[in-house]
Amino acid sequence: MNIGFIGLGNMGSAIAGRLLEAGHSLRVWNRSPEPVRRLEERGAQVAATAEEAFRGDVVFSMLSDDQVTRAVLVDSGVLARAKASETPIHVNMATISVAFADELAERHGERGVGYVAAPVLGRPDVAAAGKLTVLLAGPRQAAEFVRPLLEEAVGQKVWRFGERASKANVVKLAVNFMLAAAIESMGEAAALTAGYGIEPRDLFDLIGQSLFPGPVYQGYGRLIAEARFEPAGFKARLGLKDVRLALAAAEAATTPMPMGSLIRDSMLEALARGEGEKEFGVVLGRSALRRAGK
Amino acid sequence: MNIGFIGLGNMGSAIAGRLLEAGHSLRVWNRSPEPVRRLEERGAQVAATAEEAFRGDVVFSMLSDDQVTRAVLVDSGVLARAKASETPIHVNMATISVAFADELAERHGERGVGYVAAPVLGRPDVAAAGKLTVLLAGPRQAAEFVRPLLEEAVGQKVWRFGERASKANVVKLAVNFMLAAAIESMGEAAALTAGYGIEPRDLFDLIGQSLFPGPVYQGYGRLIAEARFEPAGFKARLGLKDVRLALAAAEAATTPMPMGSLIRDSMLEALARGEGEKEFGVVLGRSALRRAGK
Amino acid sequence: MNIGFIGLGNMGSAIAGRLLEAGHSLRVWNRSPEPVRRLEERGAQVAATAEEAFRGDVVFSMLSDDQVTRAVLVDSGVLARAKASETPIHVNMATISVAFADELAERHGERGVGYVAAPVLGRPDVAAAGKLTVLLAGPRQAAEFVRPLLEEAVGQKVWRFGERASKANVVKLAVNFMLAAAIESMGEAAALTAGYGIEPRDLFDLIGQSLFPGPVYQGYGRLIAEARFEPAGFKARLGLKDVRLALAAAEAATTPMPMGSLIRDSMLEALARGEGEKEFGVVLGRSALRRAGK
Amino acid sequence: MNIGFIGLGNMGSAIAGRLLEAGHSLRVWNRSPEPVRRLEERGAQVAATAEEAFRGDVVFSMLSDDQVTRAVLVDSGVLARAKASETPIHVNMATISVAFADELAERHGERGVGYVAAPVLGRPDVAAAGKLTVLLAGPRQAAEFVRPLLEEAVGQKVWRFGERASKANVVKLAVNFMLAAAIESMGEAAALTAGYGIEPRDLFDLIGQSLFPGPVYQGYGRLIAEARFEPAGFKARLGLKDVRLALAAAEAATTPMPMGSLIRDSMLEALARGEGEKEFGVVLGRSALRRAGK
Repeated sequence: MNIGFIGLGNMGSAIAGRLLEAGHSLRVWNRSPEPVRRLEERGAQVAATAEEAFRGDVVFSMLSDDQVTRAVLVDSGVLARAKASETPIHVNMATISVAFADELAERHGERGVGYVAAPVLGRPDVAAAGKLTVLLAGPRQAAEFVRPLLEEAVGQKVWRFGERASKANVVKLAVNFMLAAAIESMGEAAALTAGYGIEPRDLFDLIGQSLFPGPVYQGYGRLIAEARFEPAGFKARLGLKDVRLALAAAEAATTPMPMGSLIRDSMLEALARGEGEKEFGVVLGRSALRRAGK
Repeated sequence: MNIGFIGLGNMGSAIAGRLLEAGHSLRVWNRSPEPVRRLEERGAQVAATAEEAFRGDVVFSMLSDDQVTRAVLVDSGVLARAKASETPIHVNMATISVAFADELAERHGERGVGYVAAPVLGRPDVAAAGKLTVLLAGPRQAAEFVRPLLEEAVGQKVWRFGERASKANVVKLAVNFMLAAAIESMGEAAALTAGYGIEPRDLFDLIGQSLFPGPVYQGYGRLIAEARFEPAGFKARLGLKDVRLALAAAEAATTPMPMGSLIRDSMLEALARGEGEKEFGVVLGRSALRRAGK
Repeated sequence: MNIGFIGLGNMGSAIAGRLLEAGHSLRVWNRSPEPVRRLEERGAQVAATAEEAFRGDVVFSMLSDDQVTRAVLVDSGVLARAKASETPIHVNMATISVAFADELAERHGERGVGYVAAPVLGRPDVAAAGKLTVLLAGPRQAAEFVRPLLEEAVGQKVWRFGERASKANVVKLAVNFMLAAAIESMGEAAALTAGYGIEPRDLFDLIGQSLFPGPVYQGYGRLIAEARFEPAGFKARLGLKDVRLALAAAEAATTPMPMGSLIRDSMLEALARGEGEKEFGVVLGRSALRRAGK
Repeated sequence: MNIGFIGLGNMGSAIAGRLLEAGHSLRVWNRSPEPVRRLEERGAQVAATAEEAFRGDVVFSMLSDDQVTRAVLVDSGVLARAKASETPIHVNMATISVAFADELAERHGERGVGYVAAPVLGRPDVAAAGKLTVLLAGPRQAAEFVRPLLEEAVGQKVWRFGERASKANVVKLAVNFMLAAAIESMGEAAALTAGYGIEPRDLFDLIGQSLFPGPVYQGYGRLIAEARFEPAGFKARLGLKDVRLALAAAEAATTPMPMGSLIRDSMLEALARGEGEKEFGVVLGRSALRRAGK
């Protein structure tokens, strides 16, 4: 298939690489040149502008947030000049706000471009293995068209969440919130037991092998126990951003999320002490220990 | 082995049954007669008093809380009259406060009785299958003596947490807190997504099969989605009690647990509206939905 | 003096009336005609458009929020067409967001119009008596020019907060937050004592005459005790809006406000149960009693 | 009148001094001898034991907390040996827990001693001037008997709260909670405005002279602005203790106090960083500034 791909960060590059390996023809664009070069070596064509890459049987984009997505696709006029004949379907994989997702759906609709949201769960190594969990929402026809592509090259499982694209973004934010809540709970539990001389590692080993198996408790448990603030696989300030988006989406639906508020406030405090560029899970997960003087 | 067993609630009966099946000689006591009769049919001897059951190579007790344990063992004088020759080791499996666990360790020490804490993770059906997770703490000799017994008949895995018995109680409270935190986070996430027309069930299916496998998210996810307030496998007021014990233990170690405070307050509100006898996980897990008018 | 006045809600009308009484020549504009007519009867000239009223030695505006202010002054082109010769100074008395206040200062600067923020503390009856507390910020020359006018006709006391106009808005939001916090604390204290058979009224009488004199505790104390949800002198949804603006301004300065988060969440819950149009102080102040089933 | 007085801390000494000045005959006792000597110089008789001082037409006690009160009056046997003929009325002015107040009422009742609670609002200098606010509760006859004494020598105003003595203790805890809440709100408001370059002092001046007059906002405002952690007129760990008692009383009445929980957690954090002996109002009031890195 003839595919455009915009946004080659860690996640975007990994997914684009998978699509190349699956034999598709890719035209890629990115703000900084380095990741473009690496994909060119693997067979991708290079688009001179985002607008050039915003064409094909399907276009994927994986830009970092609302601001960048708006700059590249909206303010640039790319979307305003798009045509259904050149760009029948755009699959946006970024974690963006629900309000912006709704705005994008409307803007695409005006140009006749099918707009599908497909945010993913998983980190770059999972993406490179094609084993992401994909949350898919958008108009039926467009969504069903891209589904096989996503199943083949991106994710081991694709979950379908209705016709309104932003639904997939809400679910993504809800899942990220649960991840943050799990981390905060690990931190508080570790602070409690540390008060009685028990190592966080011993607590996390226990729960990871009993009530809480799976990647979150085991993976973050290890990082928190080892105080591995770096490297930052996911930066604290981005973690705060996602919690903020979840709270904003909840507020728009008149829904309080007290645990979300608590995590937001804890992360603001962390940023105020200069931890914004460190690993989110460790910054949040060690906050309770820090408050207890541990 | 010659074993005394005090306290035959759902968990106690299941564990006592396992010990009988493993071929041990059991002398059992319980406040109400019904469960005693059922174990008698399976071969247990019946003790006329708690004091009679508080003898043997090992004595197990599984009483519901601090108050009942204090009434049966302390205020009754059973412990004050105990002798090391008749009761070398007492294994207390109950979820009690850390302060009371320390007091019990001291009282046992005065009588020369080895005091071991062995609270467990898992529900009665898991207990009946001998697959509980056991948290073991107490003086080395006593703990190592009972360990094979616990591994053989009670739990698939025994975790050792040091010489101070109350350490196992702290860990148990920390784990119960994490369980409550996971439930609250499920509730808030479901309230967020419900605001956009997504069924809680769909959210829980997704997370249970991706980031959050395991019994907690899957089991409670189902109960919360179905609003199964009854039957109450674990009552809301007991859930509140455990959170309160975790906060008390944390306070004694000068440790704030803001998420714990939030859960405590949510449960107090639930009790004030008369939900104390309903299922803890559903009462807590649907609180966020209720606050959002869902 | 020749004064333009835009926005004649309860507060705006009262302040405009004071300026008329002080002998100034007023040209007024409002979206709905009724309050315009009442001021015309008292001697004001009627402007056909907001643009016409946006001229004079000084222009005051008192519009309800960011959205309305943006619609009337920015999106309409009024500000873009303004000239320093026709509109040397604009005094904005509205409670708006800090970010928007900064944006307005910049837009005014581009047109050479002096931009001063002068939000006030006090309700309409206080405004009609010319006894408001005025928070004044903005460029020195403009601020000092309008200060005598404000002291003469608007407020018994004018507080100066520096050259950046938005500083006055931050202070206004901080004060409104403190007001909300005082109300929440009254509610929780009343819920505590109500649990022991003490009437909220008795508690509020005590504190109003001892540690907490002044209009807030006494005024809201009475309203909360009497459950006077109506008339809504200040609507719950507007109270929530102000707390939200405080939290947004704090977040922009990397500052957690946990009590603010708690109040926000309580108000979201109130809106979800349909109390958005009721009196803010009573909705918030009775939330704790409601949670305790009182 | 013939009066016994037990407990001569700062508050007790000031009140006892007032009773002496009013011409009463006082027999005083205190654990440490220094304050006893000072009152002896002013004409008081010295009791050799607490039991000796626990006699007279009226006995006052002002001991620091539950533990000390229990040690001096209960565990010592003083109360168990008391007789109605020797000790018709005991006025307990201490801030104690509601549960212990109820227990004391029962123990006094068994001995025929009238038990009245009379906790006070105000600091030692206010006490020395006889201008405390007195919260009075207990059986009608005893309470009415001591009321003139309290009005004459202790407080400018006596508030009556019913026949159950512990009601006065609940009210005292509620007021202390409101005081803590006001301080926390000042801290958060100051942190918000400090983020925009406004000095806490300027904010506190404004509110103290407008919406929030009175001793709390003005007095603590000054201390917080000046970061006067010492001298500790009221220590942080005692402030935490009072919040804890409020939460315990609320919990016993199934009443959540989320702002109370938040203050408790903030104070636990302060104690964990070693601020327990510093001034409560400043420790709590500067916590929000600290979290914002200010």
